[in-house]
Amino acid sequence: MEEQPWRDRTVAEVGERVILDRLRAVAQERRPQHPAADPVVVGPGDDAATLTVRPDLVVSTDTVVQDRHFRLEWSSPHDVGRRATVQAAADVAAMGAAGVGIVVSLGCPSSTPVGVLLDIDEGIAAAAADWGVPVVGGDLVATTEIVVTVTVLGTTAGRPATRLDGAVVGDRLAVSGPVGSSAAGLALLVAGVGEYSNLVAVHRVPDVDLTQGVIAAAHGATSMTDVSDGLVEELLTMTSAAGVAVDVDSTRIPRDVDLARAADALGVDPLPWVLGGGEDHQLLATFSGSVPDGWSEIGVVVAAREDDPVRIDGRGPEVHGWSSFGDAPTSDEGRPSAHG
Amino acid sequence: MEEQPWRDRTVAEVGERVILDRLRAVAQERRPQHPAADPVVVGPGDDAATLTVRPDLVVSTDTVVQDRHFRLEWSSPHDVGRRATVQAAADVAAMGAAGVGIVVSLGCPSSTPVGVLLDIDEGIAAAAADWGVPVVGGDLVATTEIVVTVTVLGTTAGRPATRLDGAVVGDRLAVSGPVGSSAAGLALLVAGVGEYSNLVAVHRVPDVDLTQGVIAAAHGATSMTDVSDGLVEELLTMTSAAGVAVDVDSTRIPRDVDLARAADALGVDPLPWVLGGGEDHQLLATFSGSVPDGWSEIGVVVAAREDDPVRIDGRGPEVHGWSSFGDAPTSDEGRPSAHG
Repeated sequence: MEEQPWRDRTVAEVGERVILDRLRAVAQERRPQHPAADPVVVGPGDDAATLTVRPDLVVSTDTVVQDRHFRLEWSSPHDVGRRATVQAAADVAAMGAAGVGIVVSLGCPSSTPVGVLLDIDEGIAAAAADWGVPVVGGDLVATTEIVVTVTVLGTTAGRPATRLDGAVVGDRLAVSGPVGSSAAGLALLVAGVGEYSNLVAVHRVPDVDLTQGVIAAAHGATSMTDVSDGLVEELLTMTSAAGVAVDVDSTRIPRDVDLARAADALGVDPLPWVLGGGEDHQLLATFSGSVPDGWSEIGVVVAAREDDPVRIDGRGPEVHGWSSFGDAPTSDEGRPSAHG
Repeated sequence: MEEQPWRDRTVAEVGERVILDRLRAVAQERRPQHPAADPVVVGPGDDAATLTVRPDLVVSTDTVVQDRHFRLEWSSPHDVGRRATVQAAADVAAMGAAGVGIVVSLGCPSSTPVGVLLDIDEGIAAAAADWGVPVVGGDLVATTEIVVTVTVLGTTAGRPATRLDGAVVGDRLAVSGPVGSSAAGLALLVAGVGEYSNLVAVHRVPDVDLTQGVIAAAHGATSMTDVSDGLVEELLTMTSAAGVAVDVDSTRIPRDVDLARAADALGVDPLPWVLGGGEDHQLLATFSGSVPDGWSEIGVVVAAREDDPVRIDGRGPEVHGWSSFGDAPTSDEGRPSAHG
């Protein structure tokens, strides 16, 4: 047994990333010992998992929690359902897969008005239908706050899944759409600023074209993920997994037309939203050749280096993403280098 | 639009079953309109869903909530993980499927000791490994109480899934093992009786051989489900889905050797545990011929009748199962006849 002095410390003290790494290690240890019997092609740690018994089956699960990931004061129940679905689906899209089915677990207090629950469910069904995917099952339980878990099944239709770790030196780095909008929308809500409703709308429901995952895979993407934890955080994960580094030109990162004005209105710099704000769920991919139509080329994959695997405009960024537990450590333990 | 006077009432007032029916209706309405494009073979309402795009793929999700489905005072974290996994897996087994992969969403307060979380995860991994199935992905979020959602993927390996609605008049009704043990174990824990630890153990972790699902399917089961909500409740659901009735001989229902003694010790009748106690997760199936080795034949499928689709020893039962919300209505609205 390895030493685990942190077993008695709390989840908040140890941090989400260290715990996730440990959970992944447990999953790995418990896999069938004989490699030929191991049904996992891409296991925990990537956006989604694939299985050799169904070579092009992709599965991912994602949970949103009331007052942690959303507030009913700020988002309609319908938006909550849409958002939960889009962010779970983005992980499957980021494998280069099309969706084939969704299962949902809904938790809510027994005092919840039924209309709220049904509206969340309608939002889930609407987002699923937009993507052409049916809701095929679910569960309903009593919880203290509303908890929505969406599990998405997808297929790569015979193609290998587009993994997190496939970037090669010389590849072009590209995103499928604007980043930073969700963080800006949240900041506007917190500040009580009623303008720039398109940014607020993106915070409520990510505005991402999920079909771009299949398009990127067909275009020969060498690696792909979605921007859920912030651009820099995702790039740190991607470079660590692939053993490479990236140089990003911040001026080429696509931004919503209102982003600069919203930052001015709040008297802040918009760059932390762009680099550190998560939850836009745009797709982030590397390509050996051209990037697909509509994608923005934001940088290049370079050889691994000791410091700063991710450089923005030539420097290591100071902005990181966020943790679900809000207070993850910034020690080395918590860094993405512990991944994989 | 249909009238929905209950939209403003609470989940507790309306009851889980009515809401689940409505959620299923929404899922149905949102499916692709062209029948040939509909990828769902068996949709919400059965134990698990199957998809035509992967004809023998089965998926189901199940959630357990702290102080609702388990208490850490009564169950070790490891047991909580095992139990969550077994009860989710039982739904897939009840389709006649073998497991191929499991994804997990873990919610816990940020004050949770990391050891508790890891032990829950170890329990999940151990139960999955017992079934020969890998944990392939997951999510970790902050919640007020511990919430564990386990989603199980399975395959029927080319056979059609064994549905809930396939029972035919003349079929034999059988269960894969003792029922009522979990309810007895819970009653012993509530009463603080320290004996009959095997019953308490079954309450902590259901003792079901999940491979019996595939065995029953290979044996020609015409319908199958697992006993999660209580035997009578499951029989009401099964008879409603198939348009049949059943006659059950209570003396033939298998019981743990200690069940009668535990009932004596508590001064109660054990029959309500057997008929109404859920969470044993034994498999309940109908067979046109013989029942598989190790299964117990407990009754026969008969023609549908107006009253009492389920008769125990010739009479309609008074014992029903339980609801996750604890206070579901007993009106007609809440009856299984409202099922899909």
